[in-house]
Amino acid sequence: MRVLILGADGYLGWPTALDMLKKGNEVCLVDNYLRRNMAKDTQSEPLFDTPDLKERMALFSKITKRKGRVEILDCCDFDQLLNLVKDFRPDTLIHFAEQPSAPYSMKGYKEARLTLDNNLISTFNVIWSVIECVPNCHIIKLGTMGEYGTPNIDIEEGWLKVQHNGRSNTFLYPRQAGSLYHTTKVLDTDLIWFYVRSHGMKVTDLMQGPVYGISTPECDLHHDLVPNFHYDDIFGTVINRFLVQAIAGIPLTIYGRGNQVRGYLNLIDTLQCIHLAALKPPKPGQLRILNQFTETFSVNEIAEKVIEAGSEMGLRVTAESIQNPRQESENHYYNPKSTGLRELGLIPNLMSKEVIVEMLKRIKNHSDKIQPDKIFPRVKWKR
Amino acid sequence: MRVLILGADGYLGWPTALDMLKKGNEVCLVDNYLRRNMAKDTQSEPLFDTPDLKERMALFSKITKRKGRVEILDCCDFDQLLNLVKDFRPDTLIHFAEQPSAPYSMKGYKEARLTLDNNLISTFNVIWSVIECVPNCHIIKLGTMGEYGTPNIDIEEGWLKVQHNGRSNTFLYPRQAGSLYHTTKVLDTDLIWFYVRSHGMKVTDLMQGPVYGISTPECDLHHDLVPNFHYDDIFGTVINRFLVQAIAGIPLTIYGRGNQVRGYLNLIDTLQCIHLAALKPPKPGQLRILNQFTETFSVNEIAEKVIEAGSEMGLRVTAESIQNPRQESENHYYNPKSTGLRELGLIPNLMSKEVIVEMLKRIKNHSDKIQPDKIFPRVKWKR
Repeated sequence: MRVLILGADGYLGWPTALDMLKKGNEVCLVDNYLRRNMAKDTQSEPLFDTPDLKERMALFSKITKRKGRVEILDCCDFDQLLNLVKDFRPDTLIHFAEQPSAPYSMKGYKEARLTLDNNLISTFNVIWSVIECVPNCHIIKLGTMGEYGTPNIDIEEGWLKVQHNGRSNTFLYPRQAGSLYHTTKVLDTDLIWFYVRSHGMKVTDLMQGPVYGISTPECDLHHDLVPNFHYDDIFGTVINRFLVQAIAGIPLTIYGRGNQVRGYLNLIDTLQCIHLAALKPPKPGQLRILNQFTETFSVNEIAEKVIEAGSEMGLRVTAESIQNPRQESENHYYNPKSTGLRELGLIPNLMSKEVIVEMLKRIKNHSDKIQPDKIFPRVKWKR
Repeated sequence: MRVLILGADGYLGWPTALDMLKKGNEVCLVDNYLRRNMAKDTQSEPLFDTPDLKERMALFSKITKRKGRVEILDCCDFDQLLNLVKDFRPDTLIHFAEQPSAPYSMKGYKEARLTLDNNLISTFNVIWSVIECVPNCHIIKLGTMGEYGTPNIDIEEGWLKVQHNGRSNTFLYPRQAGSLYHTTKVLDTDLIWFYVRSHGMKVTDLMQGPVYGISTPECDLHHDLVPNFHYDDIFGTVINRFLVQAIAGIPLTIYGRGNQVRGYLNLIDTLQCIHLAALKPPKPGQLRILNQFTETFSVNEIAEKVIEAGSEMGLRVTAESIQNPRQESENHYYNPKSTGLRELGLIPNLMSKEVIVEMLKRIKNHSDKIQPDKIFPRVKWKR
């Protein structure tokens, strides 16, 4: 395959690029370092330093003799993206190039506007560069399980057949997200679905849950190939925050009651999912939506898992509830379906004690670099 | 009321402003002449010349002694809009400031991008200027019945209670629009609904059908106060195109089979609806959605009405089907509900033969200015 990866410097983009290279594909990696710059601006640097994209790729290439093309450009600049797509002619385009932080998107006008502009326009430009140059290219787009919110009915896989007054119609599953970031992903879906219908595009939209893990076979080849690991309140996930708190000897900060349930998956399963989706593209005019997670946990359950794994390492980890900075249901029904990726061949790697212990050990080696004040909520949803 | 009208130079904005002034409100009219400039750029000038907003307001003021404040600014410029909102402090903000043409939005990248940018960012800036300065202000937003598309089940008023696997949840009615323009209105709704939930805003979203009519009590005071009347393929509605074709002696051009059904309303009913909505704002945190039309007709039924009214005037009007430039169902179920506005007090003015004859007479007075080549489709949905 000829695989164009947008947002290739990110937590998911980088390991995906290495995985695609290892599997023998031609890969072009694109990024504009937006996330790196935002992390600096908000004092949210990752725990592990990572060389820039060109340096990392040179290192990987030296070790493995496999080399991807690296382009530093902004996907919101249509001419630049179009010229690259014209030149590289991908058959698979994987679009990770979005501002990924919910708290960042809730800070104020400037941050919300950047999120809306970057996420919508990068998606719009992806659509149009494919329409104009490579209409048969399969777009794989990263959405989020957060698009669905926490409705009181089962969450189906992208679509919902509605019976109403004796008639029926299948719709996009109605979405209702919990942050502006998540809402931009809802807008992306609406936009993509329109152009899939009008222009017969082939798109896979992956509704992904929070991903955990810092280990993949290729990233493990050298300490400078590690995926970026954020543990702060803005770019870090709840799992990363808990892991770092466990090592730093700070009680795990549970937002509110901690009964918020979400679907999670291991980074190596994200790589599996993307590869499986790439191998079997949908038909022209088909928007294939797959719910991408392997297990669901409440925040309290994750805290328990981290406490248990910490105890295995001789750490005395505690947890405490703090006021929830977000607006979200803390007690809710949650029954999301996820069968499409297993039908494509996904074999899940679950969140075992061993996996958590392994992450804790990696973090422990960098414990001198932990800045605890970054972990506590700096952004509140309500003004 | 202190009423801020964005897009006040438009077909609906201008008559709304005059109506609000006549009713004794303080009114500020805002526009950046985007639609005038786009009409020039696409050779789609309206049939009647209209003076610019400041000139029209000066004329109205001279006649009626009622004067609205006019500001020429771009709502996509947040600082300008914010400063105006800070200064004028509206209690009601009516947002018409969107690119209104479906065919324009389907021309190519440039036109689609302008539509996406203008419509989303103007809405986003409206939301944020209200959040920051006048959080109790009631936003009245013009959506479109086109957001719903033509589903196979009844179209409820904005919301749908879904029963699924023995549980139920009420969602935004699932939307699936037929053009990028209509899709931007879907994105607007998603965006507004998020901020209504997170910031307790008060919003009325009017899902409006195509509007017809060039006569309102205030616009009729002087020929230079006429609303703009587009009859071309880009900015004109099907009714306007048919009316002008009837006068010009050209067969009415029915797109495809002509069984496409939509909900329509008279311009004077739009004024009623907006005024009724403004008098009874929703509660904080409530997104009130109202389906704004009074009757449904197929394209063929509208053609028959124009033929009948033409015959009353001694015109021999014919109709012919042409290839549909759009992608839309030409035979479909259509049963949209509309009870909310009647409950608020709307008394419909229906599309009678007299109303059509009156419009035909006005157009006949300007028949020398009709440019028939502008009426035929210049934009195709499929490339």
